[in-house]
This record gives sequence, structure tokens and C-alpha cells, in this order.
Amino acid sequence: MSDTAKTNPSRARKIRDVAHWDRETDVAIVGFGGAGGCAAIEAADAGSSVIIFEVASASGGSTAMSSAEIYMGGNGGTRVQQACGFEDSTEDMFTYMMMCAGPQADEAKIRNYCENSKDHFQWLVDIGVPFKDSFHKERAIMCLTDDGLLYTGSEKAYPFAQQAKPCPRGHNLYVEGDNGGPLFMKIVTENVEKRDAITVEYETRALTLIVNEDDEVVGLVVRKDQQELNVRTRQGVILCAGGFVMNEEMIRKYAPMLTAGNTPIGNPGDTGTGILMGMAVGGAAINMHEGFITIPYYPPASMTYGIVVNDQGQRFINEDVYHGRLGAFVLRQQSQRIYFILTVDQYGDYERTSYMGAAVAGTGDSVAELEEELGLRTGTLQQTIALYNEDCLNGEDTQCHKAAEWLQPLQPPLVALDITPGRGTFLPYFTLGGLDTLPTGEVVDPQRQVIPGLYAAGRTACGVVRRAEGYSSGMSVGDASYSGRMAGKQAAARQRK
Amino acid sequence: MSDTAKTNPSRARKIRDVAHWDRETDVAIVGFGGAGGCAAIEAADAGSSVIIFEVASASGGSTAMSSAEIYMGGNGGTRVQQACGFEDSTEDMFTYMMMCAGPQADEAKIRNYCENSKDHFQWLVDIGVPFKDSFHKERAIMCLTDDGLLYTGSEKAYPFAQQAKPCPRGHNLYVEGDNGGPLFMKIVTENVEKRDAITVEYETRALTLIVNEDDEVVGLVVRKDQQELNVRTRQGVILCAGGFVMNEEMIRKYAPMLTAGNTPIGNPGDTGTGILMGMAVGGAAINMHEGFITIPYYPPASMTYGIVVNDQGQRFINEDVYHGRLGAFVLRQQSQRIYFILTVDQYGDYERTSYMGAAVAGTGDSVAELEEELGLRTGTLQQTIALYNEDCLNGEDTQCHKAAEWLQPLQPPLVALDITPGRGTFLPYFTLGGLDTLPTGEVVDPQRQVIPGLYAAGRTACGVVRRAEGYSSGMSVGDASYSGRMAGKQAAARQRK
Repeated sequence: MSDTAKTNPSRARKIRDVAHWDRETDVAIVGFGGAGGCAAIEAADAGSSVIIFEVASASGGSTAMSSAEIYMGGNGGTRVQQACGFEDSTEDMFTYMMMCAGPQADEAKIRNYCENSKDHFQWLVDIGVPFKDSFHKERAIMCLTDDGLLYTGSEKAYPFAQQAKPCPRGHNLYVEGDNGGPLFMKIVTENVEKRDAITVEYETRALTLIVNEDDEVVGLVVRKDQQELNVRTRQGVILCAGGFVMNEEMIRKYAPMLTAGNTPIGNPGDTGTGILMGMAVGGAAINMHEGFITIPYYPPASMTYGIVVNDQGQRFINEDVYHGRLGAFVLRQQSQRIYFILTVDQYGDYERTSYMGAAVAGTGDSVAELEEELGLRTGTLQQTIALYNEDCLNGEDTQCHKAAEWLQPLQPPLVALDITPGRGTFLPYFTLGGLDTLPTGEVVDPQRQVIPGLYAAGRTACGVVRRAEGYSSGMSVGDASYSGRMAGKQAAARQRK
Repeated sequence: MSDTAKTNPSRARKIRDVAHWDRETDVAIVGFGGAGGCAAIEAADAGSSVIIFEVASASGGSTAMSSAEIYMGGNGGTRVQQACGFEDSTEDMFTYMMMCAGPQADEAKIRNYCENSKDHFQWLVDIGVPFKDSFHKERAIMCLTDDGLLYTGSEKAYPFAQQAKPCPRGHNLYVEGDNGGPLFMKIVTENVEKRDAITVEYETRALTLIVNEDDEVVGLVVRKDQQELNVRTRQGVILCAGGFVMNEEMIRKYAPMLTAGNTPIGNPGDTGTGILMGMAVGGAAINMHEGFITIPYYPPASMTYGIVVNDQGQRFINEDVYHGRLGAFVLRQQSQRIYFILTVDQYGDYERTSYMGAAVAGTGDSVAELEEELGLRTGTLQQTIALYNEDCLNGEDTQCHKAAEWLQPLQPPLVALDITPGRGTFLPYFTLGGLDTLPTGEVVDPQRQVIPGLYAAGRTACGVVRRAEGYSSGMSVGDASYSGRMAGKQAAARQRK
């Protein structure tokens, strides 16, 4: 067997090929982002020794690059929700998250997440994560103020609002600007550093897992300073190495839908290594085809007053949904072009604050003029806007069910933005597939039998979030931090070997 | 380790746990459907001894249950294509199949399939598969006459026809009625039976693979007469055990989209065991989320003159596509209802010959009346049909690009059928994911490194067909028979161990 074969993440190292152990620890964690950091804190607090191996030269992962909104609620409401006058119910949160995840929902995992969400909020507060008791009213992708709470998904939109009472659950860190991620990871890192039981080895790449003769995970191989090191784990390995958005070959193979995007969101380490390592020891990788892919059309919130049409001049989605849901439905159209149609006033807002990068496709002093300029069949856009405007006056969107608060007749002059995927619009994406785990973080095989000694959390696992069409901001860091904690606790509770 | 754990397809048996060998053969084949039969013939003809293990008490698999249309062409045309006046080009066939497979296309595999398609036709003729040199003009899902050739996909429809010159490639066996599958498997079975090098063991279930210390596949475990038998293979194991459409848990986990269907298409053995066995030894399972799911709205072909609308009264697909493509786009709508709208004459055809099972949702002596009866927003369906009828008179479908031959104004009285998924319409489905293989049939891991000694074909592998929206009848049996042959040849060429 060649050296390359030995260190391929898709081929585990056998214990018989381990000449000597270079490290020993109760728990080894791969990756020091939000999931890995929270896993380490919990494992250490439960009495285990921990080594975190991080390929970068600092902690952070994709969590530090994010806004670090955290999706929490239920149980009568977190402190922030209650202070802002929202009494959240666990069942509403559960119903919403189940609708978001769709047919591939992991009910047990979502149930566990919702029921423990208020406790998770408290745990975060206890480690020092600050949240201000204030509500940000504006529809936003991220909160640029220091407000502690905002709507971050499709809670108020059709069809979600019809089945689950809307409640804001996006918790934003107490910091101005889009700086939640760095602050969150600073706090997590400080918590890790003050625990003597945790060692962090930076600039250290995880290569593959080590299994014993019964196929239990008993360690992993890492590379540091050009040397391969064998790490023995007495309790387990927790894979928190992110997703695979930076691995073009894996994207093509597993999540071809995402090839429509143009900007991968993640850190350079999101190469899928953690997922591959888990698969190599029998872990099931699930939901690998799904990803978050979006057309981030707001801010400005006033874009929500506009309408989206295809090249038949048809609307096809309520424009008050979360941007990822709109993106998902855009990708489903058999249409050469997709347009966002706005009034001139709304376009002014767009020009000032949008980062979507969509070009103007046409303008018109009348709908007919715009229709002609866009090359749409005569009468189609006119009919769509006539119906829409009539619905606005009646306060009910009979066609796409956009909520009444976003219904304002579109009065010419009008502007059409070209938001067709592949024509310049910002189209960010990341993966939503990973290792199948129990709510405890234990990795399971395709029969859902536990792989002894192996845990996964964050994007390396397949968490509570499963689809672009049912995503809300805050679900990723929420899942990373919570699933990291669960895996850390579970690994630390395992009998030492 | 318990007995259950030992015989779990997700856990390979280690050679150290094999006390004695019960069978020895050059090549073992799991499954005696179209793929397994063709694999056995090729392996035997290349000089290998072969045992086929089949869980049922007879050969057949899903191929015998199908119409056994076979998608072939290119290379100037098969004998049947040429006799019917069609000069097919390999590039047109390749372009069409690449469009069908979309972003997850396996270019090398499709290229190989197309370039060797005429040879494959000849091989089938040589083993005795009869094709009549006649063209079936009618648009059909299956050919109920004995004609040898018909259009079986979206070749003549937008957007395919715009990029690849249409040519019929569905080859139908020379037999009346929907009897191609049984005849095909009768011929394949006779060919297997007359080869002394091949043994068939029926009522024998494959349980798991056996690997040596270097993780090479060296055999498999089967169960026969309540006994586990260890089978040693000197050259390899070929998994031809079908897909996983009958495994509800796998469907929910890997292909949740298919839970919208109501009728799994396949044989009871399609439980995914072959795929799981391959995954357990490191094989990559890909395209697992995709499946064929369809609303088989024709026959009668006259349905194609109708239009399909959502609950906004909008058309969204050219109705002259293959039914699987229409089904895929139906599933993409955010719509409470989907209607098929027909004239009374067309409805008469539907009543006589359809097996779709859609109920009448409404009728109208005018479009306005139908619109009202369906509860659609006033003016929406009227506008759609007014535009459509105008386009019909002009001979160009400006909205959805249905081909001119299918454009006839819809003159009231009209009938609307409810084809909403989940409301009674026949919605058959099967899986399109499986083990990643090279064009040779060798199974590869996620890094595309070959798993020594392991091959897969037919639906256990992920073949040339990748999506419902780009399926054509004949691609499954075409792929099964061709990929089976490739795997049989490749295994037989491997040095004996």
C-alpha cells in the first residue's frame, strides 16, 4: 500500500499499521469552528481530556465568517424573546422546523433541538455570549445593529404562517455591524483556552481515522510539520470539520444543483474531509444533494414590495419568503430569464443598499413598455401586474399568498432587474449534507447502527437544516453550537478504552 | 459480534471470520435480471466460471416486469433506425443524453454508451433478441404493437430538439402487447442456461461481501435453505441486485422526493442490498436523491394537445415532453392543485385508454365557467387559454415552446382533470442512485479509486440515467444490459487470485 493510499480519508488506517502512538487523549476533535469549540467545552466540563486539531493557524471555521445569528426559541421563549414580547411555543418552533426540513426531516433531531433550545440559549449566555433584549423590526438577512432578536426566515410567510404561529427566533449577538461571527468565536476560544483539559494543535491536518479489528474508531492520523502522527483516543473522535463546499469534485458528484451558484460560502477547510473520513468507516452520508443556494434580494427590505416573474411574465413565489426559498424556486423554473420588478422608488433603495449585483434588464413608463423591452409576450406582464395590483388594493394576494403587509400596487415607471442564475447576480451556496448522526452526535451506518467511537457535529453531520427552500438564518450556527455540545457530552460519557 | 451484525449488508465479513468456503467461482453475480444475465453471458464467453445468485425462484428482475424498450442509436443508426429512414448521429445522441442527465452527467459513461450503442444492438441481435424494422409513429409510453422503433423521450421537445437533432432511439422487441420484458428475459435466460460455465442458484439471498486484509473483495456471503454459505471469488463479485425502491427507510433517507409517489416500480428484491453491500466496502453511492417519478398522462397521445396549469391558472411546461419531465415540473410547483385541461373530444380518448386515474375536477361550456368551477382567480385561466389559442393559430407556443404539431386551439366545452400529486393520480416511481462505477463497471470509492474485485451494473450502479426530468423509456434496460456486459467482461479479464 502506498503512502498516498494510507492517508486517503476514504481509507481508514488499521490499528495493525500503527507502529506507535504520537498522542493520547480521551477525546480528539477535528476542527475548531463553532461545533468543535462547543464540543471541546462540554467534553472538558464532563471530565475528559481533549485535543482539538485545526488545519488553520487560528480558531474560527465558517462560524467566524458568518453573522452568527443563532436560531433559538420555544419553551415559552428565551429571555430575549420574552423581553421583546414574544411568547414562543415549542410546538410552533417544531412545526416550522419540520416544514423547513420537508420530507427529509429528522424528527427526533428537530424535536431534541427545539425542546432544549431555551437551555441552549442559557448555556451560551453562561459562557459569555451577550444578547441585547431588543427587537429589530426590519426585514433583514443579517442584523447590522446590536439588537438581539429578529425574524430570519419564512416564519411570517405562506405556507409556514398558516401552520405555525410566527415568532422571531434569530438571536443576534450584542455587537454593531456584521460582527457576530468573530465575537462568537472569540468567546468560544477564550472558553476553550481557560480549560486546562483542552489542548489545541493548530496547522494540523486530519488525514484519516484509525480503526481496530472490530472496526471501532480508536484514533486518527494527523499531519503536522510534514509528519504523520497517530493519535490514540480513549473515548472517541468528534468530526467538526465543516462541509464540502470547497471541494468542487464532491459538489459535482453529490450536490450538482449547487453548480448553478457562483460563490461558495465557507472557509478553505470545507473540503469534505470529515465526511469522507466518516464514510470510510461505514458512516452513512445523507442529504448530500441538498444545499443552501440563494438570491439574496434583500436588503433593502423594500424589495419585498416588488414581484418576481419568469419569462412568461408569471409570478411563481410569494416574495416575502426567506431569500433562500425564493432562490430555490427560481432554480425550478424552466425559464430563460427571471426578473425582479420594482418601482423607481424601490429601485432607489436597491441601488443604495443592495449587494446582489443584478443588472437592470429594462425600464418602462408603462407596464406595456416594460413588457416590450423585456421581450415578454404582449399582455402577459400586463395581466400579471393588473391582477397583482388589484389584489394589493383588496389586501389579499390570491395568486402567491404574499402577506398583506407587503402588498403595494406597482405604479409605473417600473424597473426590471435580471436575477437569472448565471447572469451576474450574486448566487452564494453551501452544502447541507453530511454524516447521519443520532441527536447525541453518534455517527451511524446506513442501518442506523452506531459506529463505536465516532461522533460528528456542525456541517460535517447532517443536522436539523435540510433544504434551501426551508432555511432560516441562524439555523447553521444554532445547529453547529448545539450539536457540538451534544457530541462533546456523549463522547465524554463513553467508557474509556 | 452477533450473527445479525455479521450478516448486515452494511458490514462486510472479514476473511479471518471465514472458517471454510462453500463455493468457489471466478465470478459471482448477485441478481439475475437484465444486468446480471448479460454480465454472466459476457463473463462466461470470456472464459470465466460464473455463479449467479438470485433471491427469487426465477430469473427476471425488474427487466422482466418492464416493457424492455432499449435506448440505442448513434453511429449512423442501428439496422432498425436505418430501415425506418433515420440516420442517427452519435453526437446528437450524446448531446441529448448529456442534457437528460444534467449537471450530474457522467460524461465518460455516456460517451462510452453512445459510441458502442450500435455494437450493443448487434450483440443483442446475436443472442437472439428480435427487432422488427418498422417505425411506430404514435406518441406512446410503451409500444403495444410489434413495431421495432419509436420515440420514447423528449427528443422532439423543447429544449432538447433545439440542441440535438431528434431521432427515435427506443427499440421495442418484436412482440405484440406490453410483453417485451418477459421475452427479453426469456432470451437472456436461455443464453445463460446453454453456457456450461454458468451456474444459477435461485432462492439464494446475498447477505454481505467478504474482504481480505487489504480490503479487496474476495467473495460474498449468501443464505440458501436457511444456511449461510461463504462464496470465494477468484476474479470478482458483480452486484446486479437492482435499486432500492422497495426499501421505504432508504427512500426516506436518500430519495425523499420520491415519497410524493404512490406506486413503487420494481421487483420485491429492490431493497438496496446491493448498494449497501458496496457502500460497506468503501464504494461511493451517488445520485441517491434522484429518482424517476412521473404522471403518465399519455396514452392517449391526444392528451398532448391539452395544457397543464397550476392553481394560478398558469402553464409551466411544454406538454409534449416525456411524461417523467412533466411529472418533475409538477412536483416543483408551489401549488395546491395541478390540472390537465382538455376538450371534450380529447377527454373521450382519455376515458377510453388512459390508466392515469385522474378524476374530473371541473367542466365548462366556456373557459370562464371552467375557471370558476375550479376556483381559479377570475381571468387567469381565460388569459392563459386566450394566449395559448392565439399561439396555436400562429403555430408557435411563445410561452412554453410546445412543438407546432401539438398546437390546436382549446375550444369549449372543456374538461379539467385533477393531476395533483397525492389526490389519486397514478404516480409511479423508482430510484436512480447507486454505486459509482467506471464505464468498465468497476466500483470506485469517493476518490474514484477502484475497489479491487467489485463490480456493479444495472440499477445497483449509477448509470447513464440520472434524472426524472431527463429520462426516456429504454434508458433503464439499455443501461442494465450494456453495463452488465461491461462489468462481465471487465471481471473476466481480471487476473485470478
